[in-house]
Amino acid sequence: MPAPISLDDHEAHARNVLDDKAWAYFAGGAADERCLAANRHAWNAPHLQPRVLRPLAGGHTRVELLGRTLAHPILLAPVAYQRMAHPDGELASAIAASAQEAGFVLSTQASLPLETVAQAVRHDAGRGPLWMQLYLQHDAGFNRELVQRAEAAGYEALVLTVDAPCHGARDRERRAGFRLPPGISAVNLASLPPRPERALRPGQSALFDDLLAATPTWDDIARLQADTRLPLILKGILHPDDARQAARLQVGGLIVSNHGGRTLDAAPPTADCLPRIADTLQGSLPLLVDGGIRRGTDVLKALALGASAVLVGRPYIFGLANAGAQGVAHVIRLLRDELEIAMALCGVATLTDLPDDLLI
Amino acid sequence: MPAPISLDDHEAHARNVLDDKAWAYFAGGAADERCLAANRHAWNAPHLQPRVLRPLAGGHTRVELLGRTLAHPILLAPVAYQRMAHPDGELASAIAASAQEAGFVLSTQASLPLETVAQAVRHDAGRGPLWMQLYLQHDAGFNRELVQRAEAAGYEALVLTVDAPCHGARDRERRAGFRLPPGISAVNLASLPPRPERALRPGQSALFDDLLAATPTWDDIARLQADTRLPLILKGILHPDDARQAARLQVGGLIVSNHGGRTLDAAPPTADCLPRIADTLQGSLPLLVDGGIRRGTDVLKALALGASAVLVGRPYIFGLANAGAQGVAHVIRLLRDELEIAMALCGVATLTDLPDDLLI
Amino acid sequence: MPAPISLDDHEAHARNVLDDKAWAYFAGGAADERCLAANRHAWNAPHLQPRVLRPLAGGHTRVELLGRTLAHPILLAPVAYQRMAHPDGELASAIAASAQEAGFVLSTQASLPLETVAQAVRHDAGRGPLWMQLYLQHDAGFNRELVQRAEAAGYEALVLTVDAPCHGARDRERRAGFRLPPGISAVNLASLPPRPERALRPGQSALFDDLLAATPTWDDIARLQADTRLPLILKGILHPDDARQAARLQVGGLIVSNHGGRTLDAAPPTADCLPRIADTLQGSLPLLVDGGIRRGTDVLKALALGASAVLVGRPYIFGLANAGAQGVAHVIRLLRDELEIAMALCGVATLTDLPDDLLI
Amino acid sequence: MPAPISLDDHEAHARNVLDDKAWAYFAGGAADERCLAANRHAWNAPHLQPRVLRPLAGGHTRVELLGRTLAHPILLAPVAYQRMAHPDGELASAIAASAQEAGFVLSTQASLPLETVAQAVRHDAGRGPLWMQLYLQHDAGFNRELVQRAEAAGYEALVLTVDAPCHGARDRERRAGFRLPPGISAVNLASLPPRPERALRPGQSALFDDLLAATPTWDDIARLQADTRLPLILKGILHPDDARQAARLQVGGLIVSNHGGRTLDAAPPTADCLPRIADTLQGSLPLLVDGGIRRGTDVLKALALGASAVLVGRPYIFGLANAGAQGVAHVIRLLRDELEIAMALCGVATLTDLPDDLLI
Repeated sequence: MPAPISLDDHEAHARNVLDDKAWAYFAGGAADERCLAANRHAWNAPHLQPRVLRPLAGGHTRVELLGRTLAHPILLAPVAYQRMAHPDGELASAIAASAQEAGFVLSTQASLPLETVAQAVRHDAGRGPLWMQLYLQHDAGFNRELVQRAEAAGYEALVLTVDAPCHGARDRERRAGFRLPPGISAVNLASLPPRPERALRPGQSALFDDLLAATPTWDDIARLQADTRLPLILKGILHPDDARQAARLQVGGLIVSNHGGRTLDAAPPTADCLPRIADTLQGSLPLLVDGGIRRGTDVLKALALGASAVLVGRPYIFGLANAGAQGVAHVIRLLRDELEIAMALCGVATLTDLPDDLLI
Repeated sequence: MPAPISLDDHEAHARNVLDDKAWAYFAGGAADERCLAANRHAWNAPHLQPRVLRPLAGGHTRVELLGRTLAHPILLAPVAYQRMAHPDGELASAIAASAQEAGFVLSTQASLPLETVAQAVRHDAGRGPLWMQLYLQHDAGFNRELVQRAEAAGYEALVLTVDAPCHGARDRERRAGFRLPPGISAVNLASLPPRPERALRPGQSALFDDLLAATPTWDDIARLQADTRLPLILKGILHPDDARQAARLQVGGLIVSNHGGRTLDAAPPTADCLPRIADTLQGSLPLLVDGGIRRGTDVLKALALGASAVLVGRPYIFGLANAGAQGVAHVIRLLRDELEIAMALCGVATLTDLPDDLLI
Repeated sequence: MPAPISLDDHEAHARNVLDDKAWAYFAGGAADERCLAANRHAWNAPHLQPRVLRPLAGGHTRVELLGRTLAHPILLAPVAYQRMAHPDGELASAIAASAQEAGFVLSTQASLPLETVAQAVRHDAGRGPLWMQLYLQHDAGFNRELVQRAEAAGYEALVLTVDAPCHGARDRERRAGFRLPPGISAVNLASLPPRPERALRPGQSALFDDLLAATPTWDDIARLQADTRLPLILKGILHPDDARQAARLQVGGLIVSNHGGRTLDAAPPTADCLPRIADTLQGSLPLLVDGGIRRGTDVLKALALGASAVLVGRPYIFGLANAGAQGVAHVIRLLRDELEIAMALCGVATLTDLPDDLLI
Repeated sequence: MPAPISLDDHEAHARNVLDDKAWAYFAGGAADERCLAANRHAWNAPHLQPRVLRPLAGGHTRVELLGRTLAHPILLAPVAYQRMAHPDGELASAIAASAQEAGFVLSTQASLPLETVAQAVRHDAGRGPLWMQLYLQHDAGFNRELVQRAEAAGYEALVLTVDAPCHGARDRERRAGFRLPPGISAVNLASLPPRPERALRPGQSALFDDLLAATPTWDDIARLQADTRLPLILKGILHPDDARQAARLQVGGLIVSNHGGRTLDAAPPTADCLPRIADTLQGSLPLLVDGGIRRGTDVLKALALGASAVLVGRPYIFGLANAGAQGVAHVIRLLRDELEIAMALCGVATLTDLPDDLLI
């Protein structure tokens, strides 16, 4: 197989590197994987409008986000258990992100301690942002402790995933008989006490009356904000009214996401939701998006649709599987280069004030 | 072949279990099977709109139907000759439905006596409804007698199929040379006297002038209502005006159905017809729908489009073929579980008062 | 291969019966054969709206056309050189049409004398109409003589093909190296003197300055009408203005046709053109349509879109190849039966006054 | 493989003639090659509206362009390194164009001297136009010298490519490991001094701060116009505002082009851009179009959408690969013949004053 020269090449290559279970876990989506496919296709729908003979000298990909200037608008999305993809796991991904000036969001379910990852990255201003992803667990004390660890380790924002109160119908994983391999676990959750199971009365639902009995609500957001000095970014917003509610709570930002098509297969593609939410927010909150971004042209489209930055997930995991930190760095590099080319061919020298008619 | 973990898996598995003729009968549709395919695809068109951080504790799938509370809105549609799928036939399906709190609609062309089936199911309130499907036959006395047997046996409603005055162009069956295997027949029609054939004059049509010469009309509905104390549900309504007419006659409910794509291949998919009819009825009649429902997300969409409950047909027959009552129960269980997950991911705790913007 | 039970089955079967050259000639279309495919797909777009519980007794498929009552609205379109498909050629097709009460349109390029065909068919009122198709040739005397022969032989209308002033880009035929096999020719054109070739000056076009130098125009229509007592039907009308012009000339009828996708591959499908033309004519002229009709549901749709009758071409040629007159009769029978079923399932007892909302 | 009888046949044939690297270079597009595919499909979307019984005698394909009458509206687009396709390279293409009365646009990156090519073509009025394509290079002196050579050699217009300030993501080429074979080079650029590389500071972009630091802008257009007596045609215009700006500068004409899908894969298909630009210009500038034209019907559609003439690129290169000058001539001949047939079948005798409703 020839050397990968696109994100899709990395995916095809990783198919041969990962074992079947890990492949099912990382590559799969919910149910019939329509959302997974729709996420990608939705970016193809709008065309970019090339412009010619415009001054391009001194162009750059810099964007502002949460008070910092980023070299480019690409972040690595939180993905669990990266040591399943490569022995170096999240460490490799974070180092590659840091080398390539990309942001990195560590998953709560990382297979390495959050402190280990934080220590390994560059600490100069050139590095992209380092964020920590959370699920609110059933134990308030544990949640506070985890937030404090993240703060202490130098994470700059908390990314709370709000779109997965329960697992989706992960048919591909179930077909593959997925389970975590020995030696890999969510080490940062090791001290979490087990969830007390409720006894169900007849006619009660294991989902609604046990698992979701204490699922977080908007009220918990305010509490979490009170517990941390870090900006809180909500990941998994798809409805304008939820965005509005988040803005009312003055969160630090939003990520338009359908969890990479891993939860509700009937969810709309993020490229379709993004402009509706951008319209609602009118710039009042930083807005990010993930889901199906595979090309520099997709990044430019996302920004034209109102995003400040984008996250990619599976592609860098495939790069990680293929070649560790080098593979991750290559994936970021490809995307950056393609973004610059797309800008040049659209006559766009910077990512601020993109023309209104950049998309057709 | 791995264990089925979705309704489609049950279908794929059953392909290897059923002989070619039974497969053609159960899986096939009319003509080019466009309607069969369109039924399924139409459910994919609307997206569900996820909502986040909403209270979900105590959620449930209960719905009200014909004066009863059902544990969930899933019924098993009438399917003929189930002993072709499995020796236990309709008995297995009815028992599984009863165990899983699903409604069961026995076909007039069942391969077991309606009394045998009725006696085998649970009789407590937890069981889903038990209904009997009818075709109006050419002999009024026989019709009355069959209705009386259904009443006596404890069936709670009559489901009159109105969309099949004649067979569709069942090309797949004809290609497979389908005929009923020895020992399997419509035992509940055993006492029906043969239809007297009319002599045709030249230029007359065997269809219009013989077979359809006495096909039931709206007038027969009132007569049938007079002959029974059971609510009468019309199955096979696709046009709002027919729904309006049924409402005028104060029938017990309607099933939006195109006979699973087995009659008119050019018929519209039920997911497209449902909202038009719901709009017309404005809740004046209980409304059910079948055709192509394969996922819990489809069930939730059907309810968002105005249905009170849904029926599935082929999927449970495939479960039956694969593992008898256990297979049928598994199919219902999968659909219930997926429905709960879909509700949770949409921030919907109950099926009453679904938000207007649940579908995009 | 199992016995054909649909028109498509006849096509698949004929593929194995016809030699490659004949197959290319009969089955092929122009250029990339997009029009050929679009003709068929366009009939699938509108759905038929089933209605229930309507009186169907005494229903029939009769239609009025050019002052006669036809048993059903299906005619066999003109197709050249039918002895390439079967030794009995046009004779078999005409006899089968006559037996099945279908109309028959003999091609000018028939491989049998028009008189032979006319003598072989039933002469009672039950027979469908017998029409003769014409191309206006370069020799006015020959044209008159051919018309007189058609009149004398009992043809009831002339069908003038107006959509093929030149051949289309028949790539499939050229790839197959098609040429007429020995012993097969356009016998009814045998006495036509050869077209005098014009000498071209430099820069002149062999097409425009030679072949099309005397191509017929609207003026020739009036002349042809003056030369015959038969109604003149124009075949190949796709533009409403051309239909209007034809109505002004009081022709006997129009056939909406794109020559079965054999001339201009970029032409629109006939199912799309038909309603526009029906709208323009408002019933002022009998309107027929051909192109891609393969199912009884297509026939019903065509009538709902404004046609008085339909023509099928390739399907009966495939029936002819498969089993001579019996094959042709089978094709017609299948289509009639499917039409009756479609009517019954739509609650339509007759083809006059089809409901406005029969199509969705 | 049978003899090619369509442009697609030439492509299929050339696949077997060209080595993998040359194939990747000539046939490939940018990134996922969506634009390459969309260019072709977009021509299929509008249908041509056939008209019947119109006078066609004396019809012709002549068009006026830049003060000359062309025998037909087909030009050969600039394509680099044609000696990779055939030893005779650009010489064969230019001679074939000249023989078939087609225009020829020599690429700046031709593999033969521009003077050699110019001397080989016919010099009478019957020949199509001979144009020279330019990229503005980093050396103003070199640019002037190249323009003077083109003028001296008899080129009649300059075609400045403005849509490729940098290469696109040419994944196919990179996968194939494309590089120029020994002995083939851009001979007309031989005297161009190497571009001085700029030293980049940290955080600077190799693309924006080095390669594109001196990319041409609208200001350079006026300068180039001042340096030549030849009309200047801008190739690669897709936005109406860029067309308007070009009109303000009174350039000689525009070519609506996305560089054959070789630069920005997210660019819109040219068939979609053409009518918007034609609408903007209202005939104030000669307008040409390329991208995906493979059939005479496509040429007629392009003219109906507002183009004065069209260019084809890959198809003639495939003809060149297949049979040198004869192959190129065959490609042009096929397209001319198909154009004449399409005109005849649409009832269109000339290309001026095409009817408004020629497209549906």
